[in-house]
Amino acid sequence: MAVVKLASGYNIGVEKACCTLVSPAPASTPRSAPIKQDPKLPELAIISTGGTIASRIDYRTGAVTSQFDADDILTAIPALAEIGRYRTKVLYTILSENMTPAIWQELARAIHDEIKHGVTGVIVTHGTDTMAYSAAAVSFMLDTPVPVVFVGSQRSADRPSSDNAMNGVCAALAAESDLGEVAVVMHATTNDDACAIHRGTRVRKMHTSRRDAFQSIGIPPVGTVDYASRTVTLTGDAVKRGTHKLALHDQLEPHCGLIQFYPGMSPDLLKAYEGYKGLILSGTGLGHVSTAMIPQIKNLVAGGTQVVMTSQCMHGRVCDRVYDTGRDLLAAGVIEGGDMLPEVALVKQMWVLGNEKDPAKAATMMATDLKGECMRRSAHGL
Amino acid sequence: MAVVKLASGYNIGVEKACCTLVSPAPASTPRSAPIKQDPKLPELAIISTGGTIASRIDYRTGAVTSQFDADDILTAIPALAEIGRYRTKVLYTILSENMTPAIWQELARAIHDEIKHGVTGVIVTHGTDTMAYSAAAVSFMLDTPVPVVFVGSQRSADRPSSDNAMNGVCAALAAESDLGEVAVVMHATTNDDACAIHRGTRVRKMHTSRRDAFQSIGIPPVGTVDYASRTVTLTGDAVKRGTHKLALHDQLEPHCGLIQFYPGMSPDLLKAYEGYKGLILSGTGLGHVSTAMIPQIKNLVAGGTQVVMTSQCMHGRVCDRVYDTGRDLLAAGVIEGGDMLPEVALVKQMWVLGNEKDPAKAATMMATDLKGECMRRSAHGL
Repeated sequence: MAVVKLASGYNIGVEKACCTLVSPAPASTPRSAPIKQDPKLPELAIISTGGTIASRIDYRTGAVTSQFDADDILTAIPALAEIGRYRTKVLYTILSENMTPAIWQELARAIHDEIKHGVTGVIVTHGTDTMAYSAAAVSFMLDTPVPVVFVGSQRSADRPSSDNAMNGVCAALAAESDLGEVAVVMHATTNDDACAIHRGTRVRKMHTSRRDAFQSIGIPPVGTVDYASRTVTLTGDAVKRGTHKLALHDQLEPHCGLIQFYPGMSPDLLKAYEGYKGLILSGTGLGHVSTAMIPQIKNLVAGGTQVVMTSQCMHGRVCDRVYDTGRDLLAAGVIEGGDMLPEVALVKQMWVLGNEKDPAKAATMMATDLKGECMRRSAHGL
Repeated sequence: MAVVKLASGYNIGVEKACCTLVSPAPASTPRSAPIKQDPKLPELAIISTGGTIASRIDYRTGAVTSQFDADDILTAIPALAEIGRYRTKVLYTILSENMTPAIWQELARAIHDEIKHGVTGVIVTHGTDTMAYSAAAVSFMLDTPVPVVFVGSQRSADRPSSDNAMNGVCAALAAESDLGEVAVVMHATTNDDACAIHRGTRVRKMHTSRRDAFQSIGIPPVGTVDYASRTVTLTGDAVKRGTHKLALHDQLEPHCGLIQFYPGMSPDLLKAYEGYKGLILSGTGLGHVSTAMIPQIKNLVAGGTQVVMTSQCMHGRVCDRVYDTGRDLLAAGVIEGGDMLPEVALVKQMWVLGNEKDPAKAATMMATDLKGECMRRSAHGL
């Protein structure tokens, strides 16, 4: 099969026997001259890591790959030049499923350096697949006085429905706003009207392809960016610019895992996590696993693994004091993860265990809100 | 610490040293006489498996345990007697995190026997934690001409906010309706106004504690039950009574697993699934894992494990033809799971591999819609 990219942006499959080579595939588009920047506008940093917002077609495979760098993004989205002037840095050009904790650390250091340099805000272009994980990781590693805005694109720039230009513009506006925390800025609806500003520790990609795939879980978005009027509105809950002093704590313990419980799961599967420093359980309901799992969890805890319970329901908080199996889990040494999203709990655990070697103190930190990831009470109705 | 159950239904912890034993804990409430049934009403079966709808306080631990049987449910919800007459069967009294594929099989057989007996519909009372898994399992094992309605309760009967009575009444109404498929009936909103009827293969528990925790994913609910007027409304998509002939295919292959990918996941973790008949990957975005995972996935496929890709986004469908890593996954022999929920894909895989030994045919079945679990196109806007 040959894959043909249509002008509409869609791929179709054609039998190779039906194809005749007319001319070789085009080389990459020639690089345009750097766009002109207005020195009177605020200075923003764009750190590029790859993903669809920085992608074009790979004529070798017909698939979409990450090849653009930060300068290309300015060329692709000319409206950015009206909002700020930019320092651009290509940190990586990878699809975000290939992100690792080590790259999160490099990213946190790069953002830290840009803020130290004095930029008004930082934009991180990122693949959408794991953008929420990276935003959470940077949230824990970095105390920031200025906005750190992750932005991506659900549809590549070569598709008419691409969201890359509007998301990029809204990200730049958010990066100049009064925000003072790590956030994800993406389409708020399926229309090109507004982007939502999601807290980096409370956001999840909730659709494989929709442009409004990103949603705040457990709290409303901390702000919105109106595209037409170019205005940013922050909620009262948003952390404001200047609240925190710049600080970097970039240690991470990568030997942490996340496993979703399901009925009939073999307790033997937990043996794969022996020697891990941490394990997040994505339990059912209020935070449960089967009674059969508990002896093996006890073994892990006895072996020095910090085990934290979250819920695969994703909304609401765990409470292991209500039902028998929950109480047995607490007796086994499992820590309750409050209303943390399972993935955020994983990233937080990597950070906590990387920075705090005392198990009791690390346990307390896991149950304490550090960066808005763990609310004392869930917001009403969410 | 002693745990005290307040009249409000909430537990509080009190230091044991502060407590004086006034009188021993009460024994279980004495059993009331069987409630009177109206022989002119339609006959429904209630199969009880346990869970909060059938729970009361265990005065030994202060926690809530499953102790009620089906007769107790009729006593607890007198309004049921106005809707039908009931055959009751206690299959299990367990919290649903202790459900297993073997119990799902017993449950499917018990439901089959009740339908064969001639009941108008079947109600299954079930813990909410894994109710969606069980409803999906029964959906695949049983072709039913009558409604098979799973119902549970998010708040135990001893709490003023309990949803057990309304959910029970709505389940009975749905069980007498024109529905002809397996469904979950639970609160549609946080008010006591209506219950939603969710297809058994498209439903997920999306909140740890809210009464409207259950939500249809990818399609709207197939119907609603208005509590005040006692009326059932089915959508055009609902499978209607009598569409399918009664049939039971109760084989399941329990050696199937589900694992959620996250950045930095060690490919070694997949070794724990060597020898498994099936594995569901809950990938990122359109269905991705890191490039580092692919050789180990190839090993699993070569060893005879059927590997199916789903998305942890939960909404939308996987498509592994767009990006490089997805295309590499397809080349490794991974099957695309369409828009199936990861948990539903797991249950379906147990059923498919239990019933079809030819790997190519089993692969085709995984990618084919069998019981509404895998839509050709996602409903607009969902």
